[in-house]
Amino acid sequence: MNKNLGDIGERALLKMFEKLVDSGDLPFNDDAVAYSISENQSMVVNIDTFVRETDAPPKMTPAQMGSKAVTMTISDLAAKGVQPQVIVASGVFPGDFSVENTLELVTGIRETAHSYNTKFLGGDTNTAGDVILSIVALGLCQKKNLILRSGALIDDIICTTGYFGLTGAGFKVFLDNYSATEKQKNKFSSAIYEPKACLEEGLLFSQFGKINSCIDSSDGLAWSLYELLRNKNDLGIILENIPIDPTVNDFAKDHNLQAEDLALHAGEEFELLFTLKEDNFHKLQKLMESKGKVIHRIGRITNENPGLIQYMKEGKLIDVSPKGWEHFQ
Amino acid sequence: MNKNLGDIGERALLKMFEKLVDSGDLPFNDDAVAYSISENQSMVVNIDTFVRETDAPPKMTPAQMGSKAVTMTISDLAAKGVQPQVIVASGVFPGDFSVENTLELVTGIRETAHSYNTKFLGGDTNTAGDVILSIVALGLCQKKNLILRSGALIDDIICTTGYFGLTGAGFKVFLDNYSATEKQKNKFSSAIYEPKACLEEGLLFSQFGKINSCIDSSDGLAWSLYELLRNKNDLGIILENIPIDPTVNDFAKDHNLQAEDLALHAGEEFELLFTLKEDNFHKLQKLMESKGKVIHRIGRITNENPGLIQYMKEGKLIDVSPKGWEHFQ
Repeated sequence: MNKNLGDIGERALLKMFEKLVDSGDLPFNDDAVAYSISENQSMVVNIDTFVRETDAPPKMTPAQMGSKAVTMTISDLAAKGVQPQVIVASGVFPGDFSVENTLELVTGIRETAHSYNTKFLGGDTNTAGDVILSIVALGLCQKKNLILRSGALIDDIICTTGYFGLTGAGFKVFLDNYSATEKQKNKFSSAIYEPKACLEEGLLFSQFGKINSCIDSSDGLAWSLYELLRNKNDLGIILENIPIDPTVNDFAKDHNLQAEDLALHAGEEFELLFTLKEDNFHKLQKLMESKGKVIHRIGRITNENPGLIQYMKEGKLIDVSPKGWEHFQ
Repeated sequence: MNKNLGDIGERALLKMFEKLVDSGDLPFNDDAVAYSISENQSMVVNIDTFVRETDAPPKMTPAQMGSKAVTMTISDLAAKGVQPQVIVASGVFPGDFSVENTLELVTGIRETAHSYNTKFLGGDTNTAGDVILSIVALGLCQKKNLILRSGALIDDIICTTGYFGLTGAGFKVFLDNYSATEKQKNKFSSAIYEPKACLEEGLLFSQFGKINSCIDSSDGLAWSLYELLRNKNDLGIILENIPIDPTVNDFAKDHNLQAEDLALHAGEEFELLFTLKEDNFHKLQKLMESKGKVIHRIGRITNENPGLIQYMKEGKLIDVSPKGWEHFQ
């Protein structure tokens, strides 16, 4: 039986790739790859590809496309606590894409790289039917400072760098034509059209040194939390509170939607999710606040519900489904 | 007037990009980019993108696509004399591409990386209408050993690692249905479907240390030679002999084609073109022969014909046109 990628989806495919990939300084399926360049140092590398058809919401400008492509890639280095030193880009453009739009897009790449203190060194151009941008980010890291996606321990608390649901609500407004107030539209629009990676937060985590695990939430809050549990058959997660943005709560009420669902399953958000020992939380919170950043606690790692994420609603434990963005399907 | 990329072509576009790119350890428009990671060391990086529609000849297998994509990228590090330590890949596949073909393609990437003593660390997958592979190669280099594309000096001799014309003749056979003998077909087929980068040669050049300039010939012999003259308004090239593969000479005679044209303007060949002082030629030739490699001299850098490449045919100087492969057009 000869199956197509559309039949099995991206995650099943990635599982097959595991055997084909050489080992480096980070496990397969972490946010980035890394390899030793000296006894103490790793080079951390990430490539992420932006495909206009699937990654650009309607009316996204060329500058915003370039910017989002850079943010997608750098967010993964943020989750490792690594400062990207340079990016290089491959831009694939249709022959009928205008010169003006191309220069605007590449300027978006350049300026966004600079906003993350990263140099843009150039790359390659090609032509095909859609706009496709592959951005590569490289950063050096002390090996002992690399934060793993897979380091969560029992009784760790789970924290985030922000609130969720803005993209989920925004997709309803900008793709499905739900009505929204001006204020709501502005917040949703920023989240969808001008996302930012939490790089400063990731670098502070690395400096703090006691983060057990970290992941960026670009595949969705629920999916990313399940990733923290991958290959840990005895661990589960209790969500003590689902970090819903207040604007999303209001919007959900107006339209009789489940705010939890908008926060858990939308994806395309670039917050960091991370775990640490409860004892270290207040010290980290103080460090973050001294730099004008917030973090908040949303749950804990437990052995009470192995393999599951659950939250309490009206006295009942609700299972969170491992639903997230998946290519090919 | 709002022009499209198809109106101006890739090279005019690259010229516009020059202002948008930050400076690193290699000039803009070299084969790769590089940046300092210590006082003496540069990290050399190249991204190259394979688009099935334009880069895969008919009947190319998935394994050959993966392999060619890796070779395209590594060839540029070969021209710098740099050993690639790792590659990462971004694979974009249509949803109706089969799982079997995808695994064969990724295995082609892996095995080709290994053939160049390079690790394959993974990457990213996405979906779009065509198969698009962006391969990134990274290698460390002593700064003093970096070979520039732009280092050619007056009176340098120009050499190559091989003969040309096999892809040009092959395109006639496999795209335009010209007839050929079995032996011709086999040679043309290897060149088109299973190209190899001259990595060992490039590493020997770096070890030798007296190569003034080097470029890979993937954009075609003529175009690549003109690249050696870029921004050197007082220099030209005299081709003493056009390095035509003997099989190509026979094929051209059979079909009444100009063998020179097949050798000069086809592209998709991955030989190295390089210049050095005449005094150093025999020493390098001995080194190369001791490793089972050949090089041969094809011309010289001169100030006799500034901005031009010319060769002598039947007592007359013929201009070589700067024609090569160009995207978007």
